[in-house]
Amino acid sequence: MDIATNPKPQDRLAELLADEMAAVNALIRERMVSEHAPRIPEVTAHLIEAGGKRLRPMLTLAAARICGYEGSDHVKLAATVEFIHTATLLHDDVVDESEQRRGRPTANLLWDNSSSVLVGDYLLARAFLMMVETESLRVLSILAGASATISEGEVLQLSAASNLATDESVYLKVVRGKTAALFSAATQVGGVISGADESHIQALFDYGDALGIAFQIADDLLDYQGDSSATGKNIGDDFRERKLTLPVIKAVALADADERAFWQRTIEKGHQKPEDLDTALEIMTRHDTFEATRQDALSWADKARQALAPLPKGELRDLLADLADFVVARLN
Amino acid sequence: MDIATNPKPQDRLAELLADEMAAVNALIRERMVSEHAPRIPEVTAHLIEAGGKRLRPMLTLAAARICGYEGSDHVKLAATVEFIHTATLLHDDVVDESEQRRGRPTANLLWDNSSSVLVGDYLLARAFLMMVETESLRVLSILAGASATISEGEVLQLSAASNLATDESVYLKVVRGKTAALFSAATQVGGVISGADESHIQALFDYGDALGIAFQIADDLLDYQGDSSATGKNIGDDFRERKLTLPVIKAVALADADERAFWQRTIEKGHQKPEDLDTALEIMTRHDTFEATRQDALSWADKARQALAPLPKGELRDLLADLADFVVARLN
Repeated sequence: MDIATNPKPQDRLAELLADEMAAVNALIRERMVSEHAPRIPEVTAHLIEAGGKRLRPMLTLAAARICGYEGSDHVKLAATVEFIHTATLLHDDVVDESEQRRGRPTANLLWDNSSSVLVGDYLLARAFLMMVETESLRVLSILAGASATISEGEVLQLSAASNLATDESVYLKVVRGKTAALFSAATQVGGVISGADESHIQALFDYGDALGIAFQIADDLLDYQGDSSATGKNIGDDFRERKLTLPVIKAVALADADERAFWQRTIEKGHQKPEDLDTALEIMTRHDTFEATRQDALSWADKARQALAPLPKGELRDLLADLADFVVARLN
Repeated sequence: MDIATNPKPQDRLAELLADEMAAVNALIRERMVSEHAPRIPEVTAHLIEAGGKRLRPMLTLAAARICGYEGSDHVKLAATVEFIHTATLLHDDVVDESEQRRGRPTANLLWDNSSSVLVGDYLLARAFLMMVETESLRVLSILAGASATISEGEVLQLSAASNLATDESVYLKVVRGKTAALFSAATQVGGVISGADESHIQALFDYGDALGIAFQIADDLLDYQGDSSATGKNIGDDFRERKLTLPVIKAVALADADERAFWQRTIEKGHQKPEDLDTALEIMTRHDTFEATRQDALSWADKARQALAPLPKGELRDLLADLADFVVARLN
């Protein structure tokens, strides 16, 4: 098959789930309104209509369909997951002082930090209200728990990001929190709402967890290796923002005294010169940490694919497996 | 009775509910920990141990006890309410760029805005997790709904605060959102968890709503009239921050052309000179808007007291009635 007849797995997923995703999008638009504060839907629409991939809500729909769900609550849960994700993005952009997201100026730049904080709070509350409508206490625990884990991961990242003592285990905690927690909750609740076997629910959780970790490691690697015209980001943004991600953490672990001094100056103290990025890339290439990071991402993608084994065979399961391969296929 | 034998109603309430409040405080300390991110309990403790009045959780406990509740879920709900309140304060201080809260530097000043945003998010998520444990879907709807209404009120305030078109009905929407929604949810869930009659649940809601409005109007009036050694705030902070509150809104409604130009320059455009506060006070005194505002606060306190009528007579009901009088008794 050539590329034209072999579209990306998330595009095939989007096609397969087109009707339900249309219902999710309609529900999102319905629930983001505010009777009293018109700025809320303005800010939300700016971000939510900007063409995100809607990967997380698609995971919820796919999980429910794999488990043979025939109701309509999975649409509410998918919209809930997207609201939690959108709230997180709004707050992240305040935390990171970002100016661009999905190729557009961020809400904190277009409006202000206050709007981003408060509209994020509103979307979180609306997410909880929407999931209460499913009347499943287990679903409520999973999604509220994921929401707590996300902020915990982000707070941990605040103190860990520029600290050279941050090792791979701390990095994994941060990634599980800020990224994988919502992936695994998104897939798990699709199983729970379907009343699936515990083994299937566990499989869906494990898949989402490993997929989220693979996704984030790939993202962190692409920050140093990506084609900036494709990612919309500049090479080395994480380095300039003094964020310790896996390729650097691996390089710090292998550093000699000179290299350690380099990382201390550039990451811990933040005293950077324009030529430092080239030096950083050279050190990481010499220690082969890009390749080691790529291997880690591949290994998590492999875990994600393997986690699917207990689930019923079929097109959807194959698509989820392809999706796991795809999130790391972007890596050279 | 002299003052020594006639303490403030919230102190008598605290004494009457001492055992349950001790359980609430223990639960708050237990649930604010984070396995991975030690900064979370540090930031939370800074605010939560600073000696807030714990008025909202006491309202939940009092409401449950008035309705004859004999379980222990009201303790969880009281802690939930305090977590939602604390999350709101953390985010408010980012929005308002405040530097002082409860007589201490704010968390955003001691740590940073990022910590305040993310720890607030964590507390909100923990609040939802805690209330899910009560397994009452109605309680979940009420508190998630209150959380949405709070952020809606705050977003509305962002656009309304410095806009001279803001009238008393918009002011009331803001106040109902940012303050009264959590008061009324706090009292209402105390009734719901007790399985009380609908008429009692409605009475508790109405009491909390009116109490919250009276409380906020009094607060806004004290900003112009309070004894700064007692309130810990400077006279006219709201004026300097260009916040349209009730005394100014009433003055704008009565303004002649010169006065209107004054409010446009100082509030809408924010071009203030040091002597402007005295002029503002003089205009409001001339139009008697402080007295009119005080009358509004008294009227809401009266509504709060009257709302209690359907509830069982007794010491607790009397205390809640005294509390309504007390929040406005601070006003000259």
